[in-house]
Amino acid sequence: MTDTTHPFAAIILAAGKGTRMKSDLHKVLHPIAGRAMILHLLDSFAELALARTVVVAGDRREQLEAALAGHGVTIALQEPQLGTAHAALMARDALTDFDGDVLVCFGDCPMVRSETVRAMIERLHAPDAPAAVVLGFEPDDPLHYGRVIADDDGIILKMVEYKDADEGERACHLCNSGLLAARAADLFALLARVGNDNAQGEYYLPDVINIAIADGRPCAVVTAASADEVAGINSRAELAAAEARWQAARRLKAMDEGATLLAPDTVFFSWDTAVGRDVTIEPNVFFGPGVRVADHVLVRANSHIEGASLASGVKVGPFARLRPGTVLEEGSFVGNFVEVKNAVLHAGAKASHLTYLGDATIGAGANIGAGTITCNYDGYFKYRTVIGERAFIGSNSALVAPVTIGADAIVAAGSTVSRDVATGELRMVRAEQLVKPGWADRFHDTMKKKKAAGKDKAKG
Amino acid sequence: MTDTTHPFAAIILAAGKGTRMKSDLHKVLHPIAGRAMILHLLDSFAELALARTVVVAGDRREQLEAALAGHGVTIALQEPQLGTAHAALMARDALTDFDGDVLVCFGDCPMVRSETVRAMIERLHAPDAPAAVVLGFEPDDPLHYGRVIADDDGIILKMVEYKDADEGERACHLCNSGLLAARAADLFALLARVGNDNAQGEYYLPDVINIAIADGRPCAVVTAASADEVAGINSRAELAAAEARWQAARRLKAMDEGATLLAPDTVFFSWDTAVGRDVTIEPNVFFGPGVRVADHVLVRANSHIEGASLASGVKVGPFARLRPGTVLEEGSFVGNFVEVKNAVLHAGAKASHLTYLGDATIGAGANIGAGTITCNYDGYFKYRTVIGERAFIGSNSALVAPVTIGADAIVAAGSTVSRDVATGELRMVRAEQLVKPGWADRFHDTMKKKKAAGKDKAKG
Amino acid sequence: MTDTTHPFAAIILAAGKGTRMKSDLHKVLHPIAGRAMILHLLDSFAELALARTVVVAGDRREQLEAALAGHGVTIALQEPQLGTAHAALMARDALTDFDGDVLVCFGDCPMVRSETVRAMIERLHAPDAPAAVVLGFEPDDPLHYGRVIADDDGIILKMVEYKDADEGERACHLCNSGLLAARAADLFALLARVGNDNAQGEYYLPDVINIAIADGRPCAVVTAASADEVAGINSRAELAAAEARWQAARRLKAMDEGATLLAPDTVFFSWDTAVGRDVTIEPNVFFGPGVRVADHVLVRANSHIEGASLASGVKVGPFARLRPGTVLEEGSFVGNFVEVKNAVLHAGAKASHLTYLGDATIGAGANIGAGTITCNYDGYFKYRTVIGERAFIGSNSALVAPVTIGADAIVAAGSTVSRDVATGELRMVRAEQLVKPGWADRFHDTMKKKKAAGKDKAKG
Repeated sequence: MTDTTHPFAAIILAAGKGTRMKSDLHKVLHPIAGRAMILHLLDSFAELALARTVVVAGDRREQLEAALAGHGVTIALQEPQLGTAHAALMARDALTDFDGDVLVCFGDCPMVRSETVRAMIERLHAPDAPAAVVLGFEPDDPLHYGRVIADDDGIILKMVEYKDADEGERACHLCNSGLLAARAADLFALLARVGNDNAQGEYYLPDVINIAIADGRPCAVVTAASADEVAGINSRAELAAAEARWQAARRLKAMDEGATLLAPDTVFFSWDTAVGRDVTIEPNVFFGPGVRVADHVLVRANSHIEGASLASGVKVGPFARLRPGTVLEEGSFVGNFVEVKNAVLHAGAKASHLTYLGDATIGAGANIGAGTITCNYDGYFKYRTVIGERAFIGSNSALVAPVTIGADAIVAAGSTVSRDVATGELRMVRAEQLVKPGWADRFHDTMKKKKAAGKDKAKG
Repeated sequence: MTDTTHPFAAIILAAGKGTRMKSDLHKVLHPIAGRAMILHLLDSFAELALARTVVVAGDRREQLEAALAGHGVTIALQEPQLGTAHAALMARDALTDFDGDVLVCFGDCPMVRSETVRAMIERLHAPDAPAAVVLGFEPDDPLHYGRVIADDDGIILKMVEYKDADEGERACHLCNSGLLAARAADLFALLARVGNDNAQGEYYLPDVINIAIADGRPCAVVTAASADEVAGINSRAELAAAEARWQAARRLKAMDEGATLLAPDTVFFSWDTAVGRDVTIEPNVFFGPGVRVADHVLVRANSHIEGASLASGVKVGPFARLRPGTVLEEGSFVGNFVEVKNAVLHAGAKASHLTYLGDATIGAGANIGAGTITCNYDGYFKYRTVIGERAFIGSNSALVAPVTIGADAIVAAGSTVSRDVATGELRMVRAEQLVKPGWADRFHDTMKKKKAAGKDKAKG
Repeated sequence: MTDTTHPFAAIILAAGKGTRMKSDLHKVLHPIAGRAMILHLLDSFAELALARTVVVAGDRREQLEAALAGHGVTIALQEPQLGTAHAALMARDALTDFDGDVLVCFGDCPMVRSETVRAMIERLHAPDAPAAVVLGFEPDDPLHYGRVIADDDGIILKMVEYKDADEGERACHLCNSGLLAARAADLFALLARVGNDNAQGEYYLPDVINIAIADGRPCAVVTAASADEVAGINSRAELAAAEARWQAARRLKAMDEGATLLAPDTVFFSWDTAVGRDVTIEPNVFFGPGVRVADHVLVRANSHIEGASLASGVKVGPFARLRPGTVLEEGSFVGNFVEVKNAVLHAGAKASHLTYLGDATIGAGANIGAGTITCNYDGYFKYRTVIGERAFIGSNSALVAPVTIGADAIVAAGSTVSRDVATGELRMVRAEQLVKPGWADRFHDTMKKKKAAGKDKAKG
């Protein structure tokens, strides 16, 4: 369907101040599903084999440069900020040698789908060869948006701001998203002709359409499948709404693919979470970035999982906390109030309660008792704990890394182990049990008197 | 109201493949509110004193057999699967000696209420003695459902598939749920006459109505109180929707009965959860099966409770995890990051923080310090810990079961106790405190140099 | 705008039984956002510099007296309870010497805004000087409410109960909230004239309006901005609905002020929670009363925070539990499964995992290892733990308070420390490591045999 012979570039406008976010972070860097919103745009474009991406920056340019390093984009500067047409024109230098199609879009409107962009480009190359293609949308309540007045073939008759529209034009519900596509030469020629003779003294991007139409060149409109796709994000509430829409779609996808979500609205995925078939997820589970969940996994309520890989048959939670670098192999188990970080649990290993496993390797079938702590940090460096297959770590033990516990070894409950334990060995670290018969009774008597005295004093 | 003189049987069709669930588990065994959906049907029928239940199985028959063992149902086999009429006919052998009324229903349509079934049976025995009674429903959007065309007395004129319906018939919003009731003899005689002369070559259950009407026998329709009651569950999303409806109704019931739910949408009940009056439940609480909560109980946020009994005046959470076999007697307290399993806390006993109590009995008024672990497992067997009344278990203690701590006894903080402690006794297990003045200062110096060296190397 | 020269009093009716709550707690003491609903009313009035507040009590009067002690209100008694006009009249004695305006309102209708009350008082002093001002509202579905029939200037023509209203009156959607304002002398004179000649034999408050109109005195209506403002709370479900509306508004405010709420519906604030700018709150966070969150704070999922102060740059959670008296200074960190109570973490201090810090002071830059417990309680009294700057507490340590750990000191992992540790000192409490080569192997052999024997026995 797509004519991939047309090279294609994108200009992403991201120079605005984003004042309504009330944030020190650049607006387009606020995350949706754990990923900066502008990167969602780049993800969509990645499916389209984009030749070039130019991001037009202004305010907080250095934050954009840092966040986009390695993403293959060129940063252009708009300074001062004189309107969207002016912003788009700032990308010209970065595209002087580029002779293909250009999409102009917005860093704070990040949920445009690749299919939609593809439809715009295809429309640009339709036989009637429009000078530009605008992305329109049909919101439930179109009141304050600018209107795209177009004929039945999508040929634009007029772009009109709401305040300038007459009654008939306002009755038209096709609105302007602001996105547009054109051939590079057309785009920059038109942009250069946009004036700022308006109340705000700004150069407005939609004016390129009216200029082209005045030249007698056709411009076309393509309509987005859903108004949500072009929803701009200008406030934290709009950010939360975008997140909610993303999550709702992702949950449906997980269910379609064979996962049971007991309460879908309480499960939070990240942009890259992978979930298998016959996975059951109880309420209130949060997936940070970098999680892969294989088939037949049970994630119980109130678990928090980031950067972890869960193999088939794994069970975790409730109240499991898996941090980056966690690898749970087949049939292993991480129970309540257990934190795992940068650690592998080999097949069938279990850490059921109140445990911290950091920088560790747990052998297949090993059993980690309640209250076990791997002491992986001395205030300066981190060290590894290695536990052998079928080893049994008694409850309330501290394993002072670097330390190795052999296969089938047993560490007695309450032991602090700072030297290696050999295969099949018992290690017990325990002082004598000091027994003081009647001591507790005497203590209770004394303390009750003290308490009573305290009360008397309070009264006195 | 109900004429209990009519013996009554049910045929539950459960032979389908349930492909859209994308699951290795039989569709009708997927749980709602912690209970396999087909068991919800059996629960409804239990209120009707059903004489017989026949489940028609096909795909994954062995899963059904295992799950329904002990529930007093007969499994009939449909192999191959030639349509719903064919499926219902497979129950004939199991009901040859049965001479009462029969309801045909669906394992994946489990939320039909007993009142509704009773209304169908009563209608069957009304003076006009219909040959069969169909359960109709009125959905918000009836578009694609088959229609039941009936007169004002509920006598069916015609059953019509949507694709075959004319405009007038489509304007009728009474739809066919698929459920029907008839006398056994009528039902099987009619089923045997259903043909498969249709596009799919299948034997369809609703055809029995058209055959009876053609015979000149009246058939009647009864309308379900709500379309939700007959919602079929064919996908994980439909399963989640059924769960959500069940939970919403259950939450309202809990509030009506005098419980405060701060955020009802975040509290999840199981099918058998019992909740008293003046119970307060904070957000994000999950009740698994087998929980009874008496009056005047406080369940704080983020608690996870299964198979537990909470007496009057009990407080738990936030972050409490109560597992099966937990009994909390009057005024006892289980605090944050505490797991209790197969254990009794007698009146006024407290385990406030970071504790695991497994296979234990805690005496009235006992205080379990933070970080206490009952070491109940040696890798092979489980053992009990018994703690006396008013005993005080110091923080960070490990109690190696089997072990008994006497009444009023004190275990000093940090002790690993492997022998019984007598009543009123102090048990302290603590090694000498090794003091190395200045050692930490020297260590810091050394490590800072190492760290700096590491950095230099990284730079070099 | 407000004429503050008029002294102003409120009568809060709170004598009803609140039967539908099914509670032992007085209805108006049930909390919304962690604060008794009647106190929300007092909060609103506080903005209006109220001269007097009289609460009319009946059932469970002693609960009201206890809850309102110190809030500067007078309690009047209504006994027996003969209707709302009778109830309001019971406040007369408490206001004999009061010569200003009086608002009559309801303890179970607590969300009336101060702006609305101000508008009522202003209307009372408008040039047409109405005898009384009624608060009306326009609900989505006005069906069963009494109607306020008024002209375009808000002059009331008639108050009419729904059952007595004709078709034209029912078509009017302006309903009576029950709240009214009048000058004290007018109010009590009118109240004294209300009769009880009706089906229930009760004295009804709205009758004062009809009496005044019959006298030829004008009465006026002011319309509430939203029907939600005057929603009465008569059941736990209505309480939950009021809580939900309060939370929704509070979440929007937090977002407007520059906080990111990943899933706003899962964040629960208290009436007095203060949240700064560039604060990020992950899902499922609960704020109890008394929390202040400064700018640039990260609150991760499933955290539960009460009575705590979080300075700029603080990170907590997931699964953090902060209890009253927690002070987290700049850049400090409280991680998963950590409970802090009545404790200060100075700048940059860290308690990352599985820890209980109670009654403690943690010096700047100190590192508290996983599994650390402050043993602050001996069953009778509580004691403090003081930890110096940059001290390092090894994992699984128990600090037996009262105890002081010096600056830069190190406590070795697994130590139970009951005596002070000096600055720069190492304290290690650890018994000898008992090594039994091959013991574990022999244990495994024995236990496997036992287990097998157990199974044999089970079979036999």
